Amino acid sequence: MTFPLLTEEFKDEFDLRVSKVRMAMERHEIDALLVASTVNLYYLTGGVCRGYFYLPIDREPVFFMQPPATPAGANEVSIRKPEQIAAILEERGYVRPRRLGLEFDDLYYSEVERLKKVFGEVPCADGTKVMREARLTKTPLEIKKMREDGLKQCAVYSRVDRCYQEDMTDLELQIEIEHVLRKEGCLGYLRVAGSKMEINMGSLLAGPNADAPSPYDFSMGGAGVDPSLPVGASGMIMKPGMAVMVDMNGGFNGYQTDMTRCWTIGEIDEKGRRAYECSRDILRDLESFARPGVEIGEMYRRAVRIADEAGLSDYFMGHARKVAFIGHGVGIELNEAPVIMDRNKALLEENMTLAIEPKFVLPYIGALGVENTYVVRENGLENLTPFSEELTALMP
Amino acid sequence: MTFPLLTEEFKDEFDLRVSKVRMAMERHEIDALLVASTVNLYYLTGGVCRGYFYLPIDREPVFFMQPPATPAGANEVSIRKPEQIAAILEERGYVRPRRLGLEFDDLYYSEVERLKKVFGEVPCADGTKVMREARLTKTPLEIKKMREDGLKQCAVYSRVDRCYQEDMTDLELQIEIEHVLRKEGCLGYLRVAGSKMEINMGSLLAGPNADAPSPYDFSMGGAGVDPSLPVGASGMIMKPGMAVMVDMNGGFNGYQTDMTRCWTIGEIDEKGRRAYECSRDILRDLESFARPGVEIGEMYRRAVRIADEAGLSDYFMGHARKVAFIGHGVGIELNEAPVIMDRNKALLEENMTLAIEPKFVLPYIGALGVENTYVVRENGLENLTPFSEELTALMP
Repeated sequence: MTFPLLTEEFKDEFDLRVSKVRMAMERHEIDALLVASTVNLYYLTGGVCRGYFYLPIDREPVFFMQPPATPAGANEVSIRKPEQIAAILEERGYVRPRRLGLEFDDLYYSEVERLKKVFGEVPCADGTKVMREARLTKTPLEIKKMREDGLKQCAVYSRVDRCYQEDMTDLELQIEIEHVLRKEGCLGYLRVAGSKMEINMGSLLAGPNADAPSPYDFSMGGAGVDPSLPVGASGMIMKPGMAVMVDMNGGFNGYQTDMTRCWTIGEIDEKGRRAYECSRDILRDLESFARPGVEIGEMYRRAVRIADEAGLSDYFMGHARKVAFIGHGVGIELNEAPVIMDRNKALLEENMTLAIEPKFVLPYIGALGVENTYVVRENGLENLTPFSEELTALMP
Repeated sequence: MTFPLLTEEFKDEFDLRVSKVRMAMERHEIDALLVASTVNLYYLTGGVCRGYFYLPIDREPVFFMQPPATPAGANEVSIRKPEQIAAILEERGYVRPRRLGLEFDDLYYSEVERLKKVFGEVPCADGTKVMREARLTKTPLEIKKMREDGLKQCAVYSRVDRCYQEDMTDLELQIEIEHVLRKEGCLGYLRVAGSKMEINMGSLLAGPNADAPSPYDFSMGGAGVDPSLPVGASGMIMKPGMAVMVDMNGGFNGYQTDMTRCWTIGEIDEKGRRAYECSRDILRDLESFARPGVEIGEMYRRAVRIADEAGLSDYFMGHARKVAFIGHGVGIELNEAPVIMDRNKALLEENMTLAIEPKFVLPYIGALGVENTYVVRENGLENLTPFSEELTALMP
């Protein structure tokens, strides 16, 4: 089968992805999926497009495409609206699904309600869960893309110190880093899952602003500069004694790697340095502990224990407001499965990609910690964001 | 009633907005709304926050807030989860709604399904429609914010020519304009409604790339630089004879004004100039024609007629791929009601805000046209984006 969006390179990849989705469908007892969200169409076709991807568990998939895409293969059909789908499938001898998967967490209520009627009264189940499970472990091509993205991120981070000037505000520094990101090829659009996530190319937190809580679901907060977007940099001048946390990205090729490094303005209090070192200790511990078969919740508990032992638990994963995770999956979206939290009893699997971000928020000083994106390998974690973790002062 | 997010300035505004929403509820026979989307919580509370805003048609609203917001008034209650809402309302003597409005087009399927169970088995109706109707005409404070935003947009556009250098790519110019936008205070996050809209701070289209179709719902296309974001600038070097269309923004204060201007690289073909002048003719015509009581579809038909008479209908609102509208409402989101299209029989109302964008796409030359954001006044349209519409060449 050829999809117009498929390059030669993507052909085997397509078969691999379809087989991963089918395995997840089997676990959820879904015999057909109708995929319509941008992220999942991108996953299945290799490009963002308009249409509906119909995937039965035991027959060839059919891609119902809407303009501007045009059919190029036998299993591609041009339609105007999803109400045409059932009749076309019937003509081709497909039986009606017994349990249809629709993306309950990726599509608006009205979109799912419309698609529920496509096959009349068939029972529906959550296709978002299926797709998230399929995307939980990455394919070699996905890992290749994430490795490329990680190296580009590192190239941008190597230029953060050159973006800095004395008496700059946090926002001014963020804007200069955004500019470097874009000039290096960052697409500038960060896909995130969930309705409480609004951000452009990540955030920069300096000094006390790191302790300002935000209504969003990110690991860190920040007041922002307007009540319409209360997150991140606050427009305050960065002063000696403050830590500057840079957690910025935006993707260079459809995939994200999530990465955080810190700098200081002049010297910071010794407690800040200890917190930073503790974050690195946690990463080193998890790098040698994590491997396929390890319970994900145990990673969280080890991190909490190390922060406790360092006497830093009051500041771990937030201070005025804390979050209950230390990392998350990452890929097409910034926040994918799994969430690294206490109650996650799932086991690590080879080729999962994880952003691990043990962070501390210290009053006055700011946010401190390192975040790397890793791929889970047979023998441990491979770092996709290999960049110096030394805490140095920004010099104008 | 005080909400912590309400400033003194917002108090009267709050009453006004609630009364607008209630009028729309009445038309839709909805006796209570439970609002949970980011945009509509922002509209009702004046700031992005977490929680659920419960608005009965004939009793005081109650704001069920989640951390980090904390209650400050009698009608603010802190909750952990929406399942607590019904019991708290019952305690306060509120009767169960007979027909509950939930945001079918702003919330994910799973979110609405969860909220549908909050009051047990009450019938539900579409709250998105209600909120869009309420937001259709703007309040004086909203118009003030949009006027401010428009002037900031104009300041940025006045610096476009200084961003240009010879042999630049379209993307390089876009990145420099983004940089100016951000430095002038643009928040860098553009809220758009609908699932087929992904963009950072707008788009720049030069030369033949303007005719590359895109799967998104924007008025213009462009190939983009990666299959994961197929829209806008393509990374091609801009050459003499090309038109450059700048349609960039991102909002400075929670509100958007949508604005487009064009430049040329060297001289462009006379047909391009004619198309540009025709766009201005259409705007001048609609500026004097549009006023409260005018049918919205008639604006569309007048524009089409003017393009036809100029012999430019093949290029109007796209060439390889056309769209069937010439403008749209704008406010908190870039694309609000109404859509200015043939079949829209609704009448213009005072204080609607409209982005009108008669645009042409000419093969090889590129996209040409002007877009202004207007507010509908008693006597006609007031332009919120008053910036020179002369077509000049970019000079390095």
